[in-house]
Amino acid sequence: MDDDRNWTDPECPVARTLDLVGDRWSLLVIRDAMDGAQAFGDFQRRTGIARNILADRLRKLTERGVLERRPGPTGKRPVYLLTRAGSDLFATVVALRQWGERHAFAEGETHSTLVDPEGRALPVLVPVDAAGDPLAADRARVVRAGA
Amino acid sequence: MDDDRNWTDPECPVARTLDLVGDRWSLLVIRDAMDGAQAFGDFQRRTGIARNILADRLRKLTERGVLERRPGPTGKRPVYLLTRAGSDLFATVVALRQWGERHAFAEGETHSTLVDPEGRALPVLVPVDAAGDPLAADRARVVRAGA
Repeated sequence: MDDDRNWTDPECPVARTLDLVGDRWSLLVIRDAMDGAQAFGDFQRRTGIARNILADRLRKLTERGVLERRPGPTGKRPVYLLTRAGSDLFATVVALRQWGERHAFAEGETHSTLVDPEGRALPVLVPVDAAGDPLAADRARVVRAGA
Repeated sequence: MDDDRNWTDPECPVARTLDLVGDRWSLLVIRDAMDGAQAFGDFQRRTGIARNILADRLRKLTERGVLERRPGPTGKRPVYLLTRAGSDLFATVVALRQWGERHAFAEGETHSTLVDPEGRALPVLVPVDAAGDPLAADRARVVRAGA
């Protein structure tokens, strides 16, 4: 990770994450890596992303430690694999997906589904308080680093 | 929500969510709305976002049903409040934050913290399978709508 990065809001972990991966294409590339995409062409086919934008996002995500670039099986084309930090974006991708299922589809529109190894849909991710009870946005608050 | 929207990947809920809010500034505006920002100046001060970009994001988020524009208390300046769909992005913001806490701060760097009404940090959001056991990205798979 760059040491001299100009963070938008240096003490906020939400803002730092968005500085690193808060871009539609970056997050779609991460989504596709989680779904098995590895080679440039895999990513290209799945989203129809323009080649120059894809090359840029793969480079940035590699520099930022989210993807790792390795020689491909044929020794010619490289593959891009999620690092541990990249795989750890799974909760974020699941949260994005579940919000989309609830709010970005009209009644009756079909959508893809994320399932566990037994083919069952994943339960909804729900933020909870320290006691484990569901917590709504308006009951949580941010404590600044200096506070 | 626009009926004639050109979705990047129409059947994928992750992609639709990113089409709606998958932009660094949009998600920071939503973060700030969750933390109490309501007036244009509140949002402006918190991120230092340029006024024209902020105006654009507030307009788009309002059109897309994430924020609601209402007359302000003085009757002059409007305020922007999260709709139900907007508040429901809380899990996404928490997931972004928790990833940032783990991967976007060096050892010893301080960051803001999200706490429950009793001041306790929120537990980590962990995707689970249908039985409630933690599920890693490489064990889940996407089933296409037509499959």
